[in-house]
Amino acid sequence: MSLLIVGTVAFDAIETPFGKTDKILGGAATYIGLSASRYLKTQNLVSVVGEDFPQEHMDLLSNRGVDLNGLQIKQGEKTFFWSGKYHNDMNSRDTIDTQLNVLETFDPVVPEEYKNCEFLMLGNLMPSIQQRVLDQLPNRPKLIVLDTMNFWMDHFWDDLIEALKNVDVLTINDEEARQLSGEYSLVKAAKKILGMGPKNLIIKKGEHGALLFNHEEVFFAPALPLEEVFDPTGAGDTFAGGFIGYLAKTKDISFNNMKRAIIHGSAMASFCVEKFGTERLKNVSDDEIESRLNAFIDLVQVEMHL
Amino acid sequence: MSLLIVGTVAFDAIETPFGKTDKILGGAATYIGLSASRYLKTQNLVSVVGEDFPQEHMDLLSNRGVDLNGLQIKQGEKTFFWSGKYHNDMNSRDTIDTQLNVLETFDPVVPEEYKNCEFLMLGNLMPSIQQRVLDQLPNRPKLIVLDTMNFWMDHFWDDLIEALKNVDVLTINDEEARQLSGEYSLVKAAKKILGMGPKNLIIKKGEHGALLFNHEEVFFAPALPLEEVFDPTGAGDTFAGGFIGYLAKTKDISFNNMKRAIIHGSAMASFCVEKFGTERLKNVSDDEIESRLNAFIDLVQVEMHL
Repeated sequence: MSLLIVGTVAFDAIETPFGKTDKILGGAATYIGLSASRYLKTQNLVSVVGEDFPQEHMDLLSNRGVDLNGLQIKQGEKTFFWSGKYHNDMNSRDTIDTQLNVLETFDPVVPEEYKNCEFLMLGNLMPSIQQRVLDQLPNRPKLIVLDTMNFWMDHFWDDLIEALKNVDVLTINDEEARQLSGEYSLVKAAKKILGMGPKNLIIKKGEHGALLFNHEEVFFAPALPLEEVFDPTGAGDTFAGGFIGYLAKTKDISFNNMKRAIIHGSAMASFCVEKFGTERLKNVSDDEIESRLNAFIDLVQVEMHL
Repeated sequence: MSLLIVGTVAFDAIETPFGKTDKILGGAATYIGLSASRYLKTQNLVSVVGEDFPQEHMDLLSNRGVDLNGLQIKQGEKTFFWSGKYHNDMNSRDTIDTQLNVLETFDPVVPEEYKNCEFLMLGNLMPSIQQRVLDQLPNRPKLIVLDTMNFWMDHFWDDLIEALKNVDVLTINDEEARQLSGEYSLVKAAKKILGMGPKNLIIKKGEHGALLFNHEEVFFAPALPLEEVFDPTGAGDTFAGGFIGYLAKTKDISFNNMKRAIIHGSAMASFCVEKFGTERLKNVSDDEIESRLNAFIDLVQVEMHL
């Protein structure tokens, strides 16, 4: 296996209709790592924090098997901070504050012992940083998954297009797929995006599930209808972590196994939203995960008489 | 079997980003009937049109096995007319014109030979009219499906609440479920609505599929990702027609069979949106339907290794 995760480790302050948090542990790589840790004993991390990042958070990651040799700690600087407020429908949010801090000058350095990773998860980051990680790997990993967002499409289009050329799986949401392709229909959008380089495309539709496309096939994974979405922060990253964690564990990157991986990712994400931040991910049990996976299967189970 | 359909038979004038129609055949009962006719040799219809309604449209319905003895033709009056324009995303539309005409004074009369129907489809209509049909039936049908919309919630709340008490299956869309229940979460909304009378609830989410709830179970049917939605008019009614048509054909109203019926309804609806109005429904072949059903099954097919 050997999974390398690149992404932010951050502080988040979150407000939802259900409450408000102070600065809590956040960041794409954090969610990816906590989620993937359900599938893997060890994972490698390339990221950056400031000297204000508490030992307690590092211990949490460490205890989950996340190796921290690739985590740069910048003395005299502060950790990336994001603060946001969700609207009542939980599908949209306003960014209240973004303090890039250590991210502003982040130059990723891949430790020697990480360089032969087989699975690479490029979490949502500036595309040129994602590319700089790729450039340091002597051999192409078996599977490269890249997550990105509309912000990079708005401001770093060319870099993003360049990064996409090397990707096995691109994960974006429906609005981003429309923006990236200029097509409203997700089927047409997928065709265009697959023409840009990614061999597979996952379109995340939040409470409406996720679509997986390659050039020949399409698969739809539902989202579990939930009584309550408490805090959607990190759900997409948790999804990605479960997805690549499962693939790295099973060492099978076929389309059929990606289908399974998407159900695993969806199940992990469905836990993530039940509490603030990483709270629920930290204590979810194996039995709960298995029973959640079964709920996903049952949800669409139908025996047709054709 | 014996299916009785109550609903509008109408003229529609539709504008979408792809084009514009003159007055074409429309109405909830028309779509329901054309869709259900793929499953049943005969269906009974209670509705009303004006003297301007052309023989050609009646022949179309008649040729599909729709009995027209219950179709009132009001001399000197005009058929219900609706005109609407879809926005670019095809998910929202503006009503340009609504001329109730014959609907204004519509008093449904159920012919004697229809009164022992086993399956009753109450298409979207004023709730008091739906109720007046029910009141004319000496025996409760085996299955009553009721479709409604936000307009009746806004203006005839009490009548609607009364009508819901007698219903086996209520079909509404997600926004309507939220309005009817006052709950944003569809799981909570479903619980509340099932407490109002309906034994089962179908929440239609358009391009995001459909959910089926009863007090114990939940089922999710995906929508097929389509290259192009040409005209969404009638998709919900076509869905309902396929749903009840399949149930009436198989004479099985278990939750498991309702799951199958929802896939059938979704498949029929996926054809409906491919052309303007009833155009596609009129010429879809049995082979095309079977292959579409298979596409729905394949879309969510995954073999988990748990």
